[in-house]
Amino acid sequence: MKISLPATMQAVQLDEMEQPLAVREIPVPKPGPGQVLVHMAASPINPSDLAFLLGGYGFKEPLPLTPGNEGSGTVVAVGSGLMARRLLGKRVACFARMGHGGAWAEYMLTNASLCIPVGKKITLDQASMSLVNPLTALAFMDIVRLKKHPAFVNTAAASALGQMLVRLSIRQGVPLLNVVRKEAQADQLRAIGAKYVLNSTAPDFEKKLKELTHQLQVSLMLDAVGGPMLGQLLNASPRGGTILSYGRLSAETCVIEPGELILKNKRIVGFLLSDWMQKKNLLQILADIRRVQRMLGEELQTPVKKRMPFSDINEALASYQEEMSGGKILMVGNINKTTSV
Amino acid sequence: MKISLPATMQAVQLDEMEQPLAVREIPVPKPGPGQVLVHMAASPINPSDLAFLLGGYGFKEPLPLTPGNEGSGTVVAVGSGLMARRLLGKRVACFARMGHGGAWAEYMLTNASLCIPVGKKITLDQASMSLVNPLTALAFMDIVRLKKHPAFVNTAAASALGQMLVRLSIRQGVPLLNVVRKEAQADQLRAIGAKYVLNSTAPDFEKKLKELTHQLQVSLMLDAVGGPMLGQLLNASPRGGTILSYGRLSAETCVIEPGELILKNKRIVGFLLSDWMQKKNLLQILADIRRVQRMLGEELQTPVKKRMPFSDINEALASYQEEMSGGKILMVGNINKTTSV
Repeated sequence: MKISLPATMQAVQLDEMEQPLAVREIPVPKPGPGQVLVHMAASPINPSDLAFLLGGYGFKEPLPLTPGNEGSGTVVAVGSGLMARRLLGKRVACFARMGHGGAWAEYMLTNASLCIPVGKKITLDQASMSLVNPLTALAFMDIVRLKKHPAFVNTAAASALGQMLVRLSIRQGVPLLNVVRKEAQADQLRAIGAKYVLNSTAPDFEKKLKELTHQLQVSLMLDAVGGPMLGQLLNASPRGGTILSYGRLSAETCVIEPGELILKNKRIVGFLLSDWMQKKNLLQILADIRRVQRMLGEELQTPVKKRMPFSDINEALASYQEEMSGGKILMVGNINKTTSV
Repeated sequence: MKISLPATMQAVQLDEMEQPLAVREIPVPKPGPGQVLVHMAASPINPSDLAFLLGGYGFKEPLPLTPGNEGSGTVVAVGSGLMARRLLGKRVACFARMGHGGAWAEYMLTNASLCIPVGKKITLDQASMSLVNPLTALAFMDIVRLKKHPAFVNTAAASALGQMLVRLSIRQGVPLLNVVRKEAQADQLRAIGAKYVLNSTAPDFEKKLKELTHQLQVSLMLDAVGGPMLGQLLNASPRGGTILSYGRLSAETCVIEPGELILKNKRIVGFLLSDWMQKKNLLQILADIRRVQRMLGEELQTPVKKRMPFSDINEALASYQEEMSGGKILMVGNINKTTSV
């Protein structure tokens, strides 16, 4: 197998936090030990990308860097190490290295351990969205099952992840209360079977939320929003409840009432997929990946709204921020450049 | 044993949240099944009383009620039940019933299960402060030991509880970083052996806090303050840290950054002594009580600053709010009325 690689590639670049992104020709990186170079086919914009770009996570990585946390493609060059060498030529779904990003480029350098070969029936578009959201959805359903939560809440529930949770909760038979911010999103979730949906912009939202969480005996609230939503969830939670914070889509201030924690035995716990996965051994992770790949066409399906070239990245981000539901935006490389594999 | 009880008693009364308290003659209550009537000798003002009175806990109890969560005295009347009958005539330390209060009165009606007989060597003044703070201090040290925390932080550290923690942490050999808000308090803690003390009003407080918590590998932060302090602790905590919120002395808004929870695997957990004790069986609680009574003169000592009659309750609260360290204020009944036991 002879692979010819260009010297440079098109890549999205973040020069300064909270500023528009640039697209530039930069050198194609070379894989070191245990690393692989993936010729990227597609990479989604996820809420976590947006949160990172808006500076909300307080990252202090050296800039410029190429954002993008997951994607798919073909491994075209590898460094030393058995794991890396075995991936050469394979179609993979791949995570970016934590804190390095890199998926929004023609080629991404990442660790072999962060690449998962994908079966022939799975398209590279599907594969590009098969890690962050599906594995998060499975993790949440595992938490629900392991801790025997009688019912749970999810916010920003019209997201790709939110829709997966609607389908998985139906399959698992655990009531899920979905919080959205538009009536159209509520309708969309009801159409795929959601039984409980609340609109957070409704004037009686907090009252309804409290009533329903008590009625359903909700003991777990998954929050992707932060800002005022997190405090609202904390106040509405029945005694002993856990608020699991996994996102901060809101840039607004997050105010909480410590009395709710103290007197009612509640807790707020952070969730990050990579931390969750580190608690698992390799066999468990492989089992999860297999579960994901089996369900990609079903519970874990994600419709694609649009495929956009890197040069449209700022437009793509604005469009995604405006409307996160109704399908993913996939970033794709310049189709004029091809690589022989 | 013949006991003659008056028909009425002097009692502090809360008519409306956040308003000055009244002192009135009200009927002496009669114990029902499993209940006892304690002729109160003394009752401290604790931070939790203050938080309750300032409305911070969002209690919605029917008013008026008599505040006061613990105290000491002699059991002068009992309802049916073996446990209650055995306490008749005994000197006891006693908790108020959760949500009922009642200790700031000449007589308190409470459950027999909330009374602990005290040994002859222990004065009723000591006994009146022998439950809330000492049992909380032991609970925190148990958490430190059980979870193997390498070091921990406590805020409002010049409080009676804070001083107990200083002594217990030295005995247990676990570094404790104390946060106070006055230089005099820092000196006071150093005088009893505290090695690490930070003043939260110093301009470089947050920087120092972050440095020291990382240097000492702090993994647990006990917070009595809430308000901006809770957010500062969360930001300063090393990765994986737990913020245990047990008080909200501050009436200020409490703002947190969800990114700290998510990306750094941190958590904020509420602590309430009665919840903690409910996880224990009776033997474990009795063992704790015996530990407390052994250490009352030593690690768990609490100096008394002043003894004040109920009629001075508003002055006493103002004085306590001004200066919580340097000894407890004990509320005591009208010494003109006596009861034969």
